[in-house]
Amino acid sequence: MTSSTTTRVTVLGLGDMGSAIARTFLDRGFATTVWNRTASKAAPLVEAGAGSAATAAEAVAASPLVVVCLLDGTAVDEVLASVESAVTGKVLVNVTSGSPAQARANELWAKEHGAAYIDGKIMGDPPYVGTERVMFPFSGSAKAYEAHEPTLKALGGIAYHGEDAGAAAVEFMAQVAFAYELLIGFLHVLKLVRAEGLDVRAFTERAAGSLAAFPGLLDSMAEAVADGAYGPDLGSLNVQAALMNDMIAHRASVGVEAVRMREVKDLMDRRIAAGHGDQGFSSLFELLPPLE
Amino acid sequence: MTSSTTTRVTVLGLGDMGSAIARTFLDRGFATTVWNRTASKAAPLVEAGAGSAATAAEAVAASPLVVVCLLDGTAVDEVLASVESAVTGKVLVNVTSGSPAQARANELWAKEHGAAYIDGKIMGDPPYVGTERVMFPFSGSAKAYEAHEPTLKALGGIAYHGEDAGAAAVEFMAQVAFAYELLIGFLHVLKLVRAEGLDVRAFTERAAGSLAAFPGLLDSMAEAVADGAYGPDLGSLNVQAALMNDMIAHRASVGVEAVRMREVKDLMDRRIAAGHGDQGFSSLFELLPPLE
Repeated sequence: MTSSTTTRVTVLGLGDMGSAIARTFLDRGFATTVWNRTASKAAPLVEAGAGSAATAAEAVAASPLVVVCLLDGTAVDEVLASVESAVTGKVLVNVTSGSPAQARANELWAKEHGAAYIDGKIMGDPPYVGTERVMFPFSGSAKAYEAHEPTLKALGGIAYHGEDAGAAAVEFMAQVAFAYELLIGFLHVLKLVRAEGLDVRAFTERAAGSLAAFPGLLDSMAEAVADGAYGPDLGSLNVQAALMNDMIAHRASVGVEAVRMREVKDLMDRRIAAGHGDQGFSSLFELLPPLE
Repeated sequence: MTSSTTTRVTVLGLGDMGSAIARTFLDRGFATTVWNRTASKAAPLVEAGAGSAATAAEAVAASPLVVVCLLDGTAVDEVLASVESAVTGKVLVNVTSGSPAQARANELWAKEHGAAYIDGKIMGDPPYVGTERVMFPFSGSAKAYEAHEPTLKALGGIAYHGEDAGAAAVEFMAQVAFAYELLIGFLHVLKLVRAEGLDVRAFTERAAGSLAAFPGLLDSMAEAVADGAYGPDLGSLNVQAALMNDMIAHRASVGVEAVRMREVKDLMDRRIAAGHGDQGFSSLFELLPPLE
């Protein structure tokens, strides 16, 4: 019996993601106890060697580390309410989808019940749990995270974002939003490419290649935003605003939406009117709405 | 005298970009003739060895290859009107900002005047002309492009996009739009990051790192769009739509705009309602507006 087989872990919630997590723990030799509201979902895991539990409270009692992977925050609230005092002295790692505020509320509940709380989010798909293709940002109790890092590492790429229990959810929301911004913008560009009769595959290959220039650009933009010191990145706003007019007119001519281009033009115009036409794109940050 | 010093080229328009182009040709040993409406701009280039010309027509007459780099399409129309028959038998390479439609109109004019036409656009800043940090998409006469490719290569990274004179402008509009979509989305994400109290520099480093995953993703999305065959990329729309709700609610709670997130959610809802909830993100392409 190796030491890893003596590490006990419980997984509450056996949907696609929870099952993938439990399966990964089992495969790595952890003594894994599983529970799901609909018990049938536990059967294949129990067959593979997982311990079963009649109730969530019983499953929680079985291990010092309890991973919670449910449908949503409401399900988390219900299950936690049902386990009550069983969590005392345990470490809860909640990887259920949810907001930073929910994570912070869960942490409060855990503290009131004598448990340590770690919030986690999952960037990736169930088949890749256990590989570096899934990233888990975690935040919350540093002490609990350090103690259980070797176990959590089994799940894939992991990173700790600090004592604020909401930080993992913020990281997730920000990273995922960045991806969606890039991808929906890309789809609109493909619409333009197709409207003009170009080959979408060949264009995409070139656009994908041009991504190599962005890490350096993003870093310098973050630098400018952090310092509030805006050089003429991408050229001066005076020059860029003229270009934006061309792009808006062109998109109108081929029937492609220009929501972001008009927004950027409007921000540039306002920044120029305020006497900052010699600054660059990053300076638009100063005008982004504080409230919608 | 080397062979390159015998290659003659003319540059019309000596703003920052035109001057950088003329300077690059001079530095590479081309016999370079320059002209600018305001003659004083030609002085430093003439001092460096460029030939001067009293009129645009005289400058055009001096070389078989004429690079036009003016303020805008109106300036191009005026200058071309003034040179008239001097262009017969010449190759015009117009790198002035403008739309695909303007490029096609310029080509017509050139043909009517017995000249070959190549349209070009400039992706990069004047100080980097002559290096791979500036990309020039070209399109138009293949025969003229092949004949003058060695000369155009002196300007930086060059690529030929086909006989359609408008293709270089389309490539430019599409690539630049992709960059602006990515960058304005990124600025909004930084607003979210700051609203939640995270460090914008540290977040950006992580976001920049995550860009490495996108070339492969974009290629597979273009494949799906080209074939109209949409697998569940980024997960099924049913799952993604729930996530989008969380993100919209979170952004409202911290006062960050959610224009694109609401658009994506709306597109997902409509796609799901049409019975395609098992498809992925790329399938939203089918719903993008044909006209605003």
